[in-house]
Order: sequence, then C-alpha cells, then structure tokens
Amino acid sequence: MFAENLNKIIRNKKTLVCVGLDTDIEKLPAFLHSEFDPLFAFNRAIIEATHEYVAAFKLNLAFYESLGVPGWELLEKTLRLIPRGVLVIADAKRGDIENTGRKYAETFFDTYNFDAITVTPYMGMDSVTPFLEYEDKGVFILCLTSNPGSTDFQFLKTEDEPLYARVAQKIVGWNYLYGNCGLVVGGTHTHEIEEIREIAPDLPFLVPGVGAQGGNLEQVIKSATDARGMSALINSSRTILYASSERDFADVARERARQLRDQINLLISIHKNPGLMEQN
Amino acid sequence: MFAENLNKIIRNKKTLVCVGLDTDIEKLPAFLHSEFDPLFAFNRAIIEATHEYVAAFKLNLAFYESLGVPGWELLEKTLRLIPRGVLVIADAKRGDIENTGRKYAETFFDTYNFDAITVTPYMGMDSVTPFLEYEDKGVFILCLTSNPGSTDFQFLKTEDEPLYARVAQKIVGWNYLYGNCGLVVGGTHTHEIEEIREIAPDLPFLVPGVGAQGGNLEQVIKSATDARGMSALINSSRTILYASSERDFADVARERARQLRDQINLLISIHKNPGLMEQN
Repeated sequence: MFAENLNKIIRNKKTLVCVGLDTDIEKLPAFLHSEFDPLFAFNRAIIEATHEYVAAFKLNLAFYESLGVPGWELLEKTLRLIPRGVLVIADAKRGDIENTGRKYAETFFDTYNFDAITVTPYMGMDSVTPFLEYEDKGVFILCLTSNPGSTDFQFLKTEDEPLYARVAQKIVGWNYLYGNCGLVVGGTHTHEIEEIREIAPDLPFLVPGVGAQGGNLEQVIKSATDARGMSALINSSRTILYASSERDFADVARERARQLRDQINLLISIHKNPGLMEQN
Repeated sequence: MFAENLNKIIRNKKTLVCVGLDTDIEKLPAFLHSEFDPLFAFNRAIIEATHEYVAAFKLNLAFYESLGVPGWELLEKTLRLIPRGVLVIADAKRGDIENTGRKYAETFFDTYNFDAITVTPYMGMDSVTPFLEYEDKGVFILCLTSNPGSTDFQFLKTEDEPLYARVAQKIVGWNYLYGNCGLVVGGTHTHEIEEIREIAPDLPFLVPGVGAQGGNLEQVIKSATDARGMSALINSSRTILYASSERDFADVARERARQLRDQINLLISIHKNPGLMEQN
C-alpha cells in the first residue's frame, strides 16, 4: 500500500524528487537571523517554494535533535506546513531490539505521523518488524549507503555475495509480511544499484547521494527506477537548500527542484517506458 | 581516556552494573499516576535508590523520543539527577553520513553532555568518526547484539569469519584514532563474546541481555570482562526497573541492583584476578 501511494503521487505529480530538510543554522542565509524563528522561516520558505515539484520531503532527524527541545518543536511545526499529497519521511536510521523498536515506531508513526522512516538493518528482522507492523507506512531499510564508509562492511563477501545483496534479499522476504518495505541505495554506487534493482524489482528505493556527494544522475535513473521509471525517490538536500545564501534563496531552491524534476523526467523518457506509468 | 575513566569508577565503586532507564509509562507502578510528573518521579526514585550500586546509567532514547517534546524535557531533567561519579550513556544506536553524524554527536555530547553513546556500524568508519572525535567521550559500537535478529546478518560468514568478528577487528583499528571505542556485545551469545574479547582484549564492553533477555550471568562475566574483571558494563533494565509495581518499587529496585553487583563481584572473585584491579 505504501508503494502504491508513492507511485500514485509520482504518477500524479510527475516527479521523483525528494527534498531533504537538513536544516542547519550554520548554513542559513544571513538575513534570516533577524527573523523571530530563523530555522522555521527557512523551512517554511523552502517548503512553499519547492512542494509543487516534489513527491516527498525527508526530515533528517540529526539536524533537529541537535537543537534539543526547540529542535523537536521545529520538527512539529515544520510537519504542519507540508501540504497533503506529499510524503514525509523521517530520515532517522533507527534500529534496536523489539521492545525498543516499538517505541521508535511509536515516535515517528504515532507521535509525529510520518509516512515513512529510514531504519538500519544490522540488528536484523525483529529490529525492523515493529516498523513494518504499521502497514500503511513505508520502511526504507539501509541496503547500500552512499558514503565512503559503505565499503567497510556492506561490500564484504558473505558466502560469495556482498552483504548489501544479502540485505536486499532479506528485505524482499520481509516485504511479504506487510508489503511496505523500501531500500535505501546510495546514488554513488550505480553499478550495484542495478544489481539491487534486479533483486528487488518492485520495491521503492530511496536514493541519496546524487547532489553534494557526487552520484551520477543519469546512471541512477537508469538503475534505480523500475521498468516504468517509478518506485524511486531521488533525494537532494544541500544542493537545493543552500544553493543561494541571499534573499533569493527560496526562488533558487525552487528553480533547482524544478530543474532536478525535469532532468529526471527527461532521463526517464529516454531510458524507461513512462507510458507504462499511466497504466496500473 | 574513556576506558580509564570507566575502570576508575569500576575500581572505586566495585561495580560493573549499568541500569538502563527504559522508562515506560505503561509499566509504571499505578500509584505514581497521581504524581504531577509520574515518569520523572519514577526516574528520580530509581536513580536515588540504585546509584550507589551502579557504574553507569543508560538512557534508552526510544522511550524518551516516543513522548515527543515532553520526553526530551524528561531526558534533560533526568540527566540533572544523576550524581557525579556515575557514567551516563545515551543508548541511541545512531549512525549516518559524516555531516549528519556530526549533528548526532553534537546532540548527545554537546547539547546533552552524555559521557558515552551507542552507535551502529553498518555505514562504516565515516559514520563513526564524528563521535570518536570527542576524545573524552566513549563510543560503544554495536558488534554482536542480544536479540533474535542478530543472526540475520551478524553471523554471516565474510571470507571465513562472521561479520561481527570483522566489525570487532575494525573497531580495534578505529580505537587507534582516539582510544575511546567500546563494543556492544549481547549477553545472549556467551561463546562469541569470548571470541570478541580475544579480538579486543582491552576495550570496554557494554553488555545488554542478561536480564529479561535471558543471558547467563556467569558465562557473561567470564567472557566479557578483561583479565582483571574490569572493562565491562553489565546492563539491566526491565529486571530492575519493574521488579515491583507497588509502592516499594524503588526499594526492590535498589535490592535488585545490589544483588546484581554482588553476584557479579562474586563471579569475578571466582573466575578473574581482581587483585589486579588495585594496580594500574
């Protein structure tokens, strides 16, 4: 059901773009510091400027937590700004034993009503099921991440297969429970994304790493989307949020989001069969 | 330096006990619900009753986050109650790309001034270094966890060795940076703990899983502590916190903490060389 919701939004709005709200006080345009609540003013301007072009906003919890209680208030206020018809993802990368996982699931799905979350697979199935049990919510499980450290463990050969491939296979199995699994696959590993897409042909992929981290957009679109050019969210955070540090920051962010959407759609029209998008 | 601080506390207070403050509104003694702030009243009573017998308190973030803003206020107020000479560990299991990891490190080490944190290794070295860079803080990295799902990935053979052993080896390497790494090793896997202790003879171990999860205390003490019977924290949460649901809950918790300390010290006196504790 989560995958269908996601693809419905993608179909209606014709966009795979996810904007990551990694709102960082140190990177705000200077003039905003005279506002009563600069971070909120920034989030409001970015959301208003870009929501037309995005399928999802992703809130990176670290940037809110690090502010203490005011950060969680900012999170709550920001969530209220996001219009209907756009998914909201908690980029929280949580994962713990079952009774604790249940509390994390409560946090993000009950207390804050996010549509989806990112979780880490290291602790295995019982650390993921408390999230999966919310059947209408999406659970993006880290499979292959975009950062340099991804090579430390994720590429280790486990009985002839790298760990990330094992993780992908497990996630395909876990998806039979409630049909709401997704995978985080870093846009910096395009060859491997193709392999992971073969393991999980229909699951939603959340793809960070195409902006500041340097992933190649064309390769990502070819490998990460499904046959129709759907079932993927391409995240961009810093490249959109901090494109300008002047008074025009929201307009520039809007333009960047629109460009990213258009580039992606052009690549889909070249490499995929978007006609299929209208069916199913 | 973190390891030395930990062992200094262990030596002075003669205890390896860590009490996990997994404070759950649904498990509080009923009479506390008439208090103005039942969760805070509970934490205060548990801390006052048990701090004499513990080397550390571990705050399980999920239980605080799930309450929203009031949960973070509870966290702040609880931290102020913990007396000097007892370590405070954020059981947060965070881990993300470097710029995000830096924000998580800020959250727990700057904003809340925890002494140590638990982090997850899946994303590799650059997801851990932002925490390590706080040289006087401890970083307990998940190696082998106590839950059923630990068998999903952590035991996968990677070039003839299970993943958890690779993780342990990497952590020993990372420890050369700032000397402040620790390992989370679940008390439910005593045979493997022995193997991990051989890989990392001197690093602090944080051991969950001996209480409600069923790990064998004698085996854990034999395998998880160092040659002196030090460098380990044995966590107990539910078994201490919810031992009684009556008005005597704090007294019963105190008794349980004292018993656990004494059992552990007896086992150390049998299996280890605690005389060494006085040296170094």
